[in-house]
Amino acid sequence: MVESRTIVAHASGHGAAAIALLRVSGPEAYSILSGLFSPQRRQRALRAREATLVTLHDANRVLDQAIAVYFPAPSSYTGEDMLEISCHASPYIVQRLLHLLMEAGARMAKPGEFTERAFLNGKLDLSQAEAVRDLIESATPGEHKAAMMQMKGSLSREITSLRAKLLQLASLLELEIDFGEEDVEFASREELRTLASTTLSQVDGLAKTFRQGEAIRQGIPIALVGPPNAGKRSLLNHLLGEPRAIVTDIPGTTRDTIEGVFTFCGLRLRLTDTAGIRDSEDPVEAIGIARAKEQLNLARLAFLMVDASLALPEMYAQLDILLGGISSRTDACIVLTKNDLLPKEDIQTKIQAVRQKYSAVGLVSLSLLKPNGDADLLAWLKLRVEELFPSTEDVVITNARHFAALTSAKSELQALLEGIAAGYPEDLLAFHVRAVSKELGEITGEMGAEAILGNIFANFCIGK
Amino acid sequence: MVESRTIVAHASGHGAAAIALLRVSGPEAYSILSGLFSPQRRQRALRAREATLVTLHDANRVLDQAIAVYFPAPSSYTGEDMLEISCHASPYIVQRLLHLLMEAGARMAKPGEFTERAFLNGKLDLSQAEAVRDLIESATPGEHKAAMMQMKGSLSREITSLRAKLLQLASLLELEIDFGEEDVEFASREELRTLASTTLSQVDGLAKTFRQGEAIRQGIPIALVGPPNAGKRSLLNHLLGEPRAIVTDIPGTTRDTIEGVFTFCGLRLRLTDTAGIRDSEDPVEAIGIARAKEQLNLARLAFLMVDASLALPEMYAQLDILLGGISSRTDACIVLTKNDLLPKEDIQTKIQAVRQKYSAVGLVSLSLLKPNGDADLLAWLKLRVEELFPSTEDVVITNARHFAALTSAKSELQALLEGIAAGYPEDLLAFHVRAVSKELGEITGEMGAEAILGNIFANFCIGK
Repeated sequence: MVESRTIVAHASGHGAAAIALLRVSGPEAYSILSGLFSPQRRQRALRAREATLVTLHDANRVLDQAIAVYFPAPSSYTGEDMLEISCHASPYIVQRLLHLLMEAGARMAKPGEFTERAFLNGKLDLSQAEAVRDLIESATPGEHKAAMMQMKGSLSREITSLRAKLLQLASLLELEIDFGEEDVEFASREELRTLASTTLSQVDGLAKTFRQGEAIRQGIPIALVGPPNAGKRSLLNHLLGEPRAIVTDIPGTTRDTIEGVFTFCGLRLRLTDTAGIRDSEDPVEAIGIARAKEQLNLARLAFLMVDASLALPEMYAQLDILLGGISSRTDACIVLTKNDLLPKEDIQTKIQAVRQKYSAVGLVSLSLLKPNGDADLLAWLKLRVEELFPSTEDVVITNARHFAALTSAKSELQALLEGIAAGYPEDLLAFHVRAVSKELGEITGEMGAEAILGNIFANFCIGK
Repeated sequence: MVESRTIVAHASGHGAAAIALLRVSGPEAYSILSGLFSPQRRQRALRAREATLVTLHDANRVLDQAIAVYFPAPSSYTGEDMLEISCHASPYIVQRLLHLLMEAGARMAKPGEFTERAFLNGKLDLSQAEAVRDLIESATPGEHKAAMMQMKGSLSREITSLRAKLLQLASLLELEIDFGEEDVEFASREELRTLASTTLSQVDGLAKTFRQGEAIRQGIPIALVGPPNAGKRSLLNHLLGEPRAIVTDIPGTTRDTIEGVFTFCGLRLRLTDTAGIRDSEDPVEAIGIARAKEQLNLARLAFLMVDASLALPEMYAQLDILLGGISSRTDACIVLTKNDLLPKEDIQTKIQAVRQKYSAVGLVSLSLLKPNGDADLLAWLKLRVEELFPSTEDVVITNARHFAALTSAKSELQALLEGIAAGYPEDLLAFHVRAVSKELGEITGEMGAEAILGNIFANFCIGK
């Protein structure tokens, strides 16, 4: 099943660096590399796993002195004979070394091909292989944790145990089919019903974590809304904590929408500073407002920002407009900004008034000039993020492919339960049980079609 | 002399990659890394040079599974205890791992600090250390070869043998000083003169290779000159062989100067397509022409391009203008372009006429449309490049610091020879001998002041 050609890749980062790491995997890995050893100098044979200084030759010239480590099959990442070479990261040396290895019979590895070979050689299952990619791409603690749990096999174990039970029942049902007319019942229908319904709730539970998984991978969208000069841009810059932030101008409207990403409680939060929302007869402004409303609909959290120094009636008028734009799925918080402009008692009075009138939404006051003037706002944010995405030691589904398989498994399980209730014959029930098992098996790759595999590994980076 | 704090760096390239390599060096390297091993799992102690899978922990959570190799002192690159860790190249994992290692007592390495420690521990001399940097930065075969020879110690050996002889003579001269009034001559003046003059010719020979070394490092400037439509831009694009070429618009004039770099015969050639050179009363155009003339003065080679289909008198008029702009130091070649527009006999007639009139400069004809229509031009170029920069197995000075030291050594040697001829007393002669030796010693770092060292290693990349 595994292609036998030896592959090679530059597995460490490109660009200026001290050291470059090349990986070679395949049956000829050792003989291909040792062909670069000088015939004059007698290079001692590489011992398994021992970092050895080798002199690599390009015709009669020294190309580099490098450290080589030999991982003999099957105790290597891919399960094949593997070599890792740390050479000087000169653009010339790396390019030349790849060239010489290819001349000697290796070919460039495709993205993810090392991990694909590891999967095909049974070193890890498909969900673990996908977790390797997620782990490499992880940039926040949340992503790292989800990928690490999946790589360690938590999801695989859960799926495998579900499938084992299902397959046992499927066998019993098929035994009934074999006995044909004799009307025996090897698989108790009650037992089958119980198994189907507990499996359904487990599958459903896993599928539900995908919402959390999506937040981990894509971040949580948060809208900053409010009239101009309410302090939206200042809060955005403050939360992003330049210069680490990535601020992007999103063109296409005359009134710009600014987006920025920052890491908070281990998750990636996506802040959008939308155009002010208010009635306008200017058609150009109307486009900006429509866009702002769109952003608002996508937001999971929203800060409704008003200047604390406004008179109460004006503040109410603004808040009514802002609240009118918020969808019911968005968790909103009123922010009285620039509270440093007012005496403390005035702020307290206003807070009480606003809290009474808008008791359904959150409320904080904010000053970016006072020390810890953002404490209330951050506390509200922390509470919401932890509420929406509790820190868990359980498996979290982060992969859309897994979510799709779980969703299909769910419908099959529902069909199975209906079949049991309606007293369907054993062959129909067995069909549904097998279908559930197949869907779950796709997650771990036990039922993966070749086409799916190719797609999955193509998203890897070269050298893994 | 060596600072004892343990240092750490991400030594492989940044950006998306499968694997990242971290290096840790210093007396605490092992204990700092092993602090990240889990207290629950009993991690077997790392054996010297054995690539070992380790599980690295961040508090009670698995941060990564990585391959660690332990190089105990003194058999490591730095001469200190060293560890190399290949982890998953996730931005989060790399950043967190560096953080944990620093928390445990390591500090971030300064650029070149690993090599600086190797130098301070006597693993390599200064010229070899500098060659490590050159090797890492090498992008052409020429740079690679020069750096590799220097790293292997060819220059060091030459300098060391010169210094040994000089120091022996200096000792004899100083012995004479000790004997003071007694008028003995331990160091034969004739022997001293012979040594000084052979040393001078060796030092001079080395210094002269710097011209070649500069060409290796900075490339050979070649100007393309000629009137508009002579085919300058087409030849430039052809030689650069897009898309590998780097073409840069150099702004500042209304008539652009285009520069491109390509590798030829192992060297980097810098092509400049200058504005046409001709008399002009337009002040703006005059600026462009002045700039073109400047480029021409810097060029080592120049292609003077004229359209082969022009009538001879017009061709001569253009060539006279072009040749008038060429400095005597530039090796020029007339290129009759677009020779595919004319019958073969016409071309031959024109070539003969031009060769007769301009016998002092090279001449080729060119067609970019015919197969191998560039053969003559490439042959001329190859000959010139090999003539200017013969492929040599000898040491080539590529480093301005070494060139400066050699130049100073030269003046001291000349002063020494004059002193011997004038019968100067032994103390003055000894002073010059010591001065020569000191200058040469700076190349290998045997006489390096701290200030020089800091400067040299600051130009390295992090992790080396």
